[in-house]
Amino acid sequence: MTPAASPPSFPHRHLLGIEGLSRLDIEGLLDQAESAVSLSRQVEKKRNVLRGRTQINLFFEPSTRTQSSFELAGKRLGADVMNMSVASSSVKKGETLIDTAATLNAMRPDIIVVRHHAAGAVHLLARKVDCAVVNAGDGAHEHPTQALLDALTIRRNKGRIEGLTVAICGDVLHSRVARSNIILLQALGARVRVIGPSNLLPPGIERFGVEVFTQMREGLKDCDIVMMLRLQRERMHGSFVPSVKEYFRYYGLDTDKLALASPGALVMHPGPMNRGVEISSEIADGAQSLIREQVEMGVAVRMAVLEALATHLPNG
Amino acid sequence: MTPAASPPSFPHRHLLGIEGLSRLDIEGLLDQAESAVSLSRQVEKKRNVLRGRTQINLFFEPSTRTQSSFELAGKRLGADVMNMSVASSSVKKGETLIDTAATLNAMRPDIIVVRHHAAGAVHLLARKVDCAVVNAGDGAHEHPTQALLDALTIRRNKGRIEGLTVAICGDVLHSRVARSNIILLQALGARVRVIGPSNLLPPGIERFGVEVFTQMREGLKDCDIVMMLRLQRERMHGSFVPSVKEYFRYYGLDTDKLALASPGALVMHPGPMNRGVEISSEIADGAQSLIREQVEMGVAVRMAVLEALATHLPNG
Amino acid sequence: MTPAASPPSFPHRHLLGIEGLSRLDIEGLLDQAESAVSLSRQVEKKRNVLRGRTQINLFFEPSTRTQSSFELAGKRLGADVMNMSVASSSVKKGETLIDTAATLNAMRPDIIVVRHHAAGAVHLLARKVDCAVVNAGDGAHEHPTQALLDALTIRRNKGRIEGLTVAICGDVLHSRVARSNIILLQALGARVRVIGPSNLLPPGIERFGVEVFTQMREGLKDCDIVMMLRLQRERMHGSFVPSVKEYFRYYGLDTDKLALASPGALVMHPGPMNRGVEISSEIADGAQSLIREQVEMGVAVRMAVLEALATHLPNG
Repeated sequence: MTPAASPPSFPHRHLLGIEGLSRLDIEGLLDQAESAVSLSRQVEKKRNVLRGRTQINLFFEPSTRTQSSFELAGKRLGADVMNMSVASSSVKKGETLIDTAATLNAMRPDIIVVRHHAAGAVHLLARKVDCAVVNAGDGAHEHPTQALLDALTIRRNKGRIEGLTVAICGDVLHSRVARSNIILLQALGARVRVIGPSNLLPPGIERFGVEVFTQMREGLKDCDIVMMLRLQRERMHGSFVPSVKEYFRYYGLDTDKLALASPGALVMHPGPMNRGVEISSEIADGAQSLIREQVEMGVAVRMAVLEALATHLPNG
Repeated sequence: MTPAASPPSFPHRHLLGIEGLSRLDIEGLLDQAESAVSLSRQVEKKRNVLRGRTQINLFFEPSTRTQSSFELAGKRLGADVMNMSVASSSVKKGETLIDTAATLNAMRPDIIVVRHHAAGAVHLLARKVDCAVVNAGDGAHEHPTQALLDALTIRRNKGRIEGLTVAICGDVLHSRVARSNIILLQALGARVRVIGPSNLLPPGIERFGVEVFTQMREGLKDCDIVMMLRLQRERMHGSFVPSVKEYFRYYGLDTDKLALASPGALVMHPGPMNRGVEISSEIADGAQSLIREQVEMGVAVRMAVLEALATHLPNG
Repeated sequence: MTPAASPPSFPHRHLLGIEGLSRLDIEGLLDQAESAVSLSRQVEKKRNVLRGRTQINLFFEPSTRTQSSFELAGKRLGADVMNMSVASSSVKKGETLIDTAATLNAMRPDIIVVRHHAAGAVHLLARKVDCAVVNAGDGAHEHPTQALLDALTIRRNKGRIEGLTVAICGDVLHSRVARSNIILLQALGARVRVIGPSNLLPPGIERFGVEVFTQMREGLKDCDIVMMLRLQRERMHGSFVPSVKEYFRYYGLDTDKLALASPGALVMHPGPMNRGVEISSEIADGAQSLIREQVEMGVAVRMAVLEALATHLPNG
């Protein structure tokens, strides 16, 4: 059993987004996550920080990776973790989100981790409960733990985030990952570019202070980090669904295109990957890829978030 | 960690229904549940009463609330809890209920919590296993922990159950909740009325000693507690499925109708609610509503039941 | 709490099949399983052997029995157990098996238990991860823990395996259970026969050193153990799907046919049974049936396997 590091003084009751976090908040979580990395690499991975606490994972959209990552994070901190997915839920019987929130709240959980298909649903839920709420992805809005794990992965490999140039590439329009990353990376002093076909870039994205490119070969020049996004064809309706072959030709990351970035540029992807669509297998599995490390950092960052919020739990 | 209260001497090996319980049995469980309420309101919600014991939640019908409530109850008492739902079960491969029972029994669980769509299935299962069985709802027959949590909620708010007048309103025909409540409330000295359209009242319901009303406005007069039931349209087949609008007009609880009950009458609903069908949002969320407290009492009552049965477990 | 028995020295990092295990390996696991049987029969069923370890049950095919058995085994040894089924997994989003393996591996589990519909998938996965892998059934290839539990059940009832004559009967073609049992039982000195209609016997099965019979009445003569297999109609395509009635007449085990085996012959079935198809209810529930005991031995054998592999975990 590792002795518990003193948790960072995190001044928020919930983690609903990166928006609203200070640089100090973010760096405190990343520092805390470093000690969680060590813990998970030990044989005995368990601490008692959340012993006797109840964590509910409430997923209105299925997600293997994110739910598993939060489940393991909670269990490794000693919490009782309960998974609730929509498929087996009262939502089918017509119960509203607010009734679901009130019902769960009455069961006296300490932390609710929520994924929902609608932007803003997690904020609404947070206003209706007494416990801590963690946003595990809401619509195309935010996915704060993904941005934190990306930042941790970059920091461990580049030694810093300040001053780096990061390109976020592909289907930015449907991506909560992009949005949370833009806010976080800029807060930590990185320069952020977005690259994608114009119909997959949100109108007015420039107001976030990013540079915008519609040509991959231009946008990648001198980048230190290349973050690929999953092409979310399942969220595209109506006329424009790109052909996979065309998409890969213009926006898929392969050896040729990556050669345009800085020497030593590193490649990231939030997963699950569409190999041959937004990224070639050669790059995904190559020496410049951080994709596996991102998954490991995911568990660590979620442990850090749960532990930080635990300090605000009633009587905690 | 709260020191374990000495568990009540509960003389039954299973909890299959309210029928067959004495007033003393019921009051013992309610007293025990009070200490579980305190425990769940603490940061450290965990006791070791069921440590090393195995609890299986076997749900042939999905139910978010009830399954979650039993899962948290078991985990807070330290049990290893395993959920089994029909969707992922051998029942799909044509295994009989009895084979399922025998299979689970061979895994040496200590407690099986069962929900089944057929009245009597839980009794059948209890005869085939060596461990304790808890009925979490069987067809239109019984749902004993719901009746216990309703009684606990009433007792905490009215100070007693003896002498109160309780109206159970709506779709009594399809309701195991109604049946268990009628038996329990009468055992504790309440006067019970049922109110509903004649085609949603079970033929011969009078033999349970209840007063029967088909007019809501008549039946609510001088009631201390108004228990609304969910309109179970999914269980209705063939000719008569009421229109939601008509149903609400005649049998939905709104401010006007509630004004006919006693001053200070309290409102209950087992959830999930159909807002605007059997109850208005104004009443559901209003000052006279106990609906949220019922959910909290659900976890407490289930903890009390699990603990009471644990005293009968082999070598327990 | 039972003091931990010193675990057997099991020289393999994974359990991918019975093929490749020595007689000593197998007997060591069976001995270890005996102490797990005692543990599960106690009220306090929990040990700390795997405390702080993470076990992932990754099921690409649903299986109530096997998954539950592994889940209880892991929990009784103190592991944090996480279930992942395909239905809620990224596989739906087109992720490859290798990406799934790499993702899970990055979460730093200690043990992954895998069931997959393709023969060889479990071996592939084992090459991609750093942790221990247990094969919980891969296609028609192997199901090693089933063979181990069958052997344990036989040994407890006959006192030995050496020198017994065991008949494996029915749909051998689609059965990983048959294959693992043939290898294991021969390694421990039993004589093995397979019996079935010729189109349900794998071509060339004789090379495994078994005697082959297409007539049940001939094959059963002088057998000590009769292992029935489930008729896997769901795996049969095209022209030949046997009629249930005909199948039972020629290959279903009933009192008449069982009378041809040795006096005191014992009957086994891996479950779930098709009553009236491959076995009569009279036999399944009769005095010669070991079917329930097999299920109990399943949990014990899986505890033994998890414990044996734990000695090889990094820093373990």
